Amino acid sequence: MTPGAAHWRRSFSELVEMRVLVTGASGFVGRHAVNALLAAGVEVHAVARETLPIDCPWYCVDLLDQAQARDIVRSIRPDSILHLAWCVDHGKFWTDPANVEWVASTLTMARTAIDVGVRHFTGVGTCYEYDWPADEDCEESRTPLSGHSLYDISKSGCRSVLDGLFAIQGLGFAWARLFFLYGVSEDPRRLVASVARSLVRGEPARCSQGLAVRDFMAVQDAGAALAAVTLAQTQGSINVASGVGVKVSEIANTLGRLSGRPELIKLGALPDRADEPMRIVADITRLRDEVGFRPRLTPEEGLQVAYDYWVEHEKRSLAS
Amino acid sequence: MTPGAAHWRRSFSELVEMRVLVTGASGFVGRHAVNALLAAGVEVHAVARETLPIDCPWYCVDLLDQAQARDIVRSIRPDSILHLAWCVDHGKFWTDPANVEWVASTLTMARTAIDVGVRHFTGVGTCYEYDWPADEDCEESRTPLSGHSLYDISKSGCRSVLDGLFAIQGLGFAWARLFFLYGVSEDPRRLVASVARSLVRGEPARCSQGLAVRDFMAVQDAGAALAAVTLAQTQGSINVASGVGVKVSEIANTLGRLSGRPELIKLGALPDRADEPMRIVADITRLRDEVGFRPRLTPEEGLQVAYDYWVEHEKRSLAS
Repeated sequence: MTPGAAHWRRSFSELVEMRVLVTGASGFVGRHAVNALLAAGVEVHAVARETLPIDCPWYCVDLLDQAQARDIVRSIRPDSILHLAWCVDHGKFWTDPANVEWVASTLTMARTAIDVGVRHFTGVGTCYEYDWPADEDCEESRTPLSGHSLYDISKSGCRSVLDGLFAIQGLGFAWARLFFLYGVSEDPRRLVASVARSLVRGEPARCSQGLAVRDFMAVQDAGAALAAVTLAQTQGSINVASGVGVKVSEIANTLGRLSGRPELIKLGALPDRADEPMRIVADITRLRDEVGFRPRLTPEEGLQVAYDYWVEHEKRSLAS
Repeated sequence: MTPGAAHWRRSFSELVEMRVLVTGASGFVGRHAVNALLAAGVEVHAVARETLPIDCPWYCVDLLDQAQARDIVRSIRPDSILHLAWCVDHGKFWTDPANVEWVASTLTMARTAIDVGVRHFTGVGTCYEYDWPADEDCEESRTPLSGHSLYDISKSGCRSVLDGLFAIQGLGFAWARLFFLYGVSEDPRRLVASVARSLVRGEPARCSQGLAVRDFMAVQDAGAALAAVTLAQTQGSINVASGVGVKVSEIANTLGRLSGRPELIKLGALPDRADEPMRIVADITRLRDEVGFRPRLTPEEGLQVAYDYWVEHEKRSLAS
């Protein structure tokens, strides 16, 4: 059990009776959210595309099929939903027309859930919903929103309609905005995974100058934080992040140090991306003070876990 | 044929080959939009809840059933969609959870339409999307938006996602914001209909002081304007309204004059609604100059048509 989950069991002892439906439960973040909810002692029903190596009832459902989406909600009759499923194909999801189908599916699930007595719904948003300030942290109620891509436009439109729906029903609704995650099972084309893999193989890790400042969080902690938001029945938009801005170059250099081969980190070998904002960092006052969540891993520990995963992954690849 | 439609036939002669799917075709506005499109010579396929006394192919479809929504779009393969269907139960639609189902249905239809080659989609919004300025007209790009009710929040969220979807596909998308409509087949509990009915029956028409200023348009003209937006393949949000602000008391007094019984109008007999904004009027520069639409009826003519409808309606009621 994570310390976060223990905290929840103490503070919300009445909530351990709750039945939570988790979608996207086999995904990058979802599996950690399920573990944290199980550790807190709640009844978890997991919806996934794949089989789950987790000790809870799970269901293989195509949520983009309206009939299946309705049926699973009606048959589980959850008290609470943590809805993680969405299109997440690396590189493609920014412009994937499936984003629009996921909005429709999410609204259908929420509408159905109200009919069967749901009390709280946690949807998952993104830091890309914000119009990032140049020198401030993104804060839930103060920072203006913007539309950068079909992905964040769809997430934001979905949030707005869900917010209106649950408000009018007098029911709970949280919208957890994830920032930059890394860790076990990450897509190998993403920053931490690609640098770690190069290091594990003893190859140069070619990076940009890495001047952009980002808010990174280990995926285990992100999953535990989402579970905490669900258990706390948080209201409204809430950033799920570390609250710490780190230069991308620093992430790469830390991985270099952890591998014992810092000379393999080649900053400046790739061009900087001109269209990227210099700073995307979360204000985590709500997550820390209202939800009371504390990350379990330091940034260095998180990167160590991620690096070790790629060491093991490489060993398995070579052995097979 | 309305002058508006004749104008379209001249200016967009290449478009008379277009196949247009119209949803909500048996509704208050929909039947007039269908007539205007037919008058312009385009191929119209109408989707409705009821049978249509109109000479075009029509289909009885439950668009809230995802499978039916997809099937009708796939079988018609329209070049253009004019999507009017939505929940509109008088008094109830502001808070109806079905608003959320209509967002899902609309997104499903749009997504499916793209797969079968649609080139343009016209959705229908509302003046309630705006954060009404106290002393200015609502303008599409300048006036900030707000969330007043689940109805306009759902409409606005839907618009935002559709806008992102069609932009990324390089396809046309118009969002026609309707203001205040009146006319034939209006719900009898609405302003013009209820005043006209009282007058027709020789009963006092009890009103508030009627100080609020609104933008009223005859429903025939609104239908023709929506057809014009569809035929012009307009891009982005566009107000569909008269552009003229009229006090509610003036509407009532005009109906009183038309009936020959002005003394039946009892202004101030009902309390004013404290939560109503004083002014909701459209800037119609886009509709007038870009689409080139001109209303066919003067305000007085529009109210005369509405009044005559209730005279006939009352005669039929008495005869049956």
